[in-house]
Amino acid sequence: MTHIYNFSAGPAVLPKEVLTQAAAEMLDWHGSGMSVMEMSHRGPEFMSIYKAAERDLRELLAVPDNYKILFMQGGGLSQNALVPLNLLGHKPAGATIDFIYTGSWSAKSIKEAGKYANVNIAASSTTSVPPQSEWRLTPGAAYLHMCTNETIDGVEYDFDGGVPAARQDVLFVADMSSHILSRVIDVSKYGVIFAGAQKNIGPAGVTIVIIRDDLLGQALPACPSAFDFKLVADNESMYNTPPTYGIYIAGLVFQWLKAQGGVAEMERRAKAKAALLYAALDLDDFYQNRVAPANRSRMNVPFYLKDESRNEAFLAGAKARGLLQLKGHKSVGGMRASIYNAMPIEGVQALVDYLNEFAGR
Amino acid sequence: MTHIYNFSAGPAVLPKEVLTQAAAEMLDWHGSGMSVMEMSHRGPEFMSIYKAAERDLRELLAVPDNYKILFMQGGGLSQNALVPLNLLGHKPAGATIDFIYTGSWSAKSIKEAGKYANVNIAASSTTSVPPQSEWRLTPGAAYLHMCTNETIDGVEYDFDGGVPAARQDVLFVADMSSHILSRVIDVSKYGVIFAGAQKNIGPAGVTIVIIRDDLLGQALPACPSAFDFKLVADNESMYNTPPTYGIYIAGLVFQWLKAQGGVAEMERRAKAKAALLYAALDLDDFYQNRVAPANRSRMNVPFYLKDESRNEAFLAGAKARGLLQLKGHKSVGGMRASIYNAMPIEGVQALVDYLNEFAGR
Repeated sequence: MTHIYNFSAGPAVLPKEVLTQAAAEMLDWHGSGMSVMEMSHRGPEFMSIYKAAERDLRELLAVPDNYKILFMQGGGLSQNALVPLNLLGHKPAGATIDFIYTGSWSAKSIKEAGKYANVNIAASSTTSVPPQSEWRLTPGAAYLHMCTNETIDGVEYDFDGGVPAARQDVLFVADMSSHILSRVIDVSKYGVIFAGAQKNIGPAGVTIVIIRDDLLGQALPACPSAFDFKLVADNESMYNTPPTYGIYIAGLVFQWLKAQGGVAEMERRAKAKAALLYAALDLDDFYQNRVAPANRSRMNVPFYLKDESRNEAFLAGAKARGLLQLKGHKSVGGMRASIYNAMPIEGVQALVDYLNEFAGR
Repeated sequence: MTHIYNFSAGPAVLPKEVLTQAAAEMLDWHGSGMSVMEMSHRGPEFMSIYKAAERDLRELLAVPDNYKILFMQGGGLSQNALVPLNLLGHKPAGATIDFIYTGSWSAKSIKEAGKYANVNIAASSTTSVPPQSEWRLTPGAAYLHMCTNETIDGVEYDFDGGVPAARQDVLFVADMSSHILSRVIDVSKYGVIFAGAQKNIGPAGVTIVIIRDDLLGQALPACPSAFDFKLVADNESMYNTPPTYGIYIAGLVFQWLKAQGGVAEMERRAKAKAALLYAALDLDDFYQNRVAPANRSRMNVPFYLKDESRNEAFLAGAKARGLLQLKGHKSVGGMRASIYNAMPIEGVQALVDYLNEFAGR
């Protein structure tokens, strides 16, 4: 069989070592006689898995002690509603949420938040991240929402070492779904960070929320209990039965990340992989990427053929070479290569070789 | 190793054949070169898995064409909020929901629904199901909520062939989390059926909703889009990224159920397993089950030792014999044996043998 490289934007490639271990442990986890799927979430076996996953994620991201890590369900999309439902309970009716609009995921967040609050688009661009000096913030806004990596548009925040400069007067809420764990961040700059797992963490169906503990307990009355951050935090993510198997796989990914050298090493690799791929795209005008260089995503690389009539031929040739799921999102067309942590540089090199071959270089 | 029998109330035992197949396919599903966890949810590979799972569940439960099957996230608990959020949008403010209170799960549903509507407890008992003749229903109620099997209290509906008689004037909403697929039901009697997967369907993190299609499109404005039944239905459960791996495992369970003879065969086995276990509990007063015989659950069998000072000794002896997770729910104490579809009668016989041994019979 041709070696497969899977460039899906998510659910996405996972480390082979993780899948191999999961397969080996499927029927009997550590001599327990049970699959992880069959364990009571409150039993000692699963609790040990849960606590290790929480501890390893805390270590990988250097999450301060005054932040809780929640393992929830519903995906990043659900957080577009759950964040306002959880943060607006102590705000006056008609409170405003500021947004930085940088693409498709910001747009979804803005639309959803409009159900619960006034929304203000403080700055807008889908080919770059507007500089802070241009943000028109609302005095007294409940919080500022940003999507720090736009999966569809390929726009990634890249100032101040990858995260925005802290501002005492602004509460930052960040959707990091598609680049969490790929670069060093300073969690203390944020009030809330959330991420769907199915890009850089593990299987779809797990959602990570990292929240400063003074923000707990501010839910609106309409917030479902199963999604009330304080209830989830107070019950160690077991107010509801958590997605146990997904948490187990995420935990294996966290162990793999630590063994690889942690987030700093992932960032080094991500820079190298992205540089290799963008250089091939920039070599001439056969391919195009429309994002400002400083904000090009290291995780999601959208690109267009100058001659779009050849799109199908490009994809067919890629598939024949084991380069899978390169078709761009239907809303923007073109191509997209997602090169998450679990994508080895050999996969990016194989794609670059094909880019050059197809361009007749 | 001692043969293990896992009596967990959920997450719970899964068929060995399902786990074996999942392990074998973990790194390469059907020659695709990908794990199911790595597949785009919109790609042809996962879509084929999804459609087969939906089709098989529809066949197993004989779901009529005018019902949608949704694969959601959040667990049965989340549906206590999501059902009112989805059904009350066309009702006047102050609408009433009727409830039949039969135990812990009804109690949670009642408490949660109170956030969104008036609630009326139309009938109440935690050791039997009140007969319909005693229900004090609210004229014009939005719907009637029932938990048709109480996982903690071991109370199961068992009139009219296992489901309540249809009433033209009442919209039935049923939480079937802990006995779905264990008995033949008539879906057409219900407006909405929901079930967390982690008892009789598959891994935690998948929630099944079966809804009559005229009930779609009635969400309250505060309902998060990711949990809006109409949006989920219109997008074949892919408005949000679904819990792909959990759906895959559920699909394998559905295939296993079909191969075993379907729901009618599961009902036959459940009756046999429950009869065997309750007979051992009823033999003398060493053990006690407090539920009215007609409403004793075939899935969750709570019981108490007459001499509760021996509880720890009972559990230790059970564990030594490979009979796991028999401790009762902390809210009610005692013991509980959950004997879902995937529990073979050999497991129940092993438990019965131990019950007799421990009682000195």
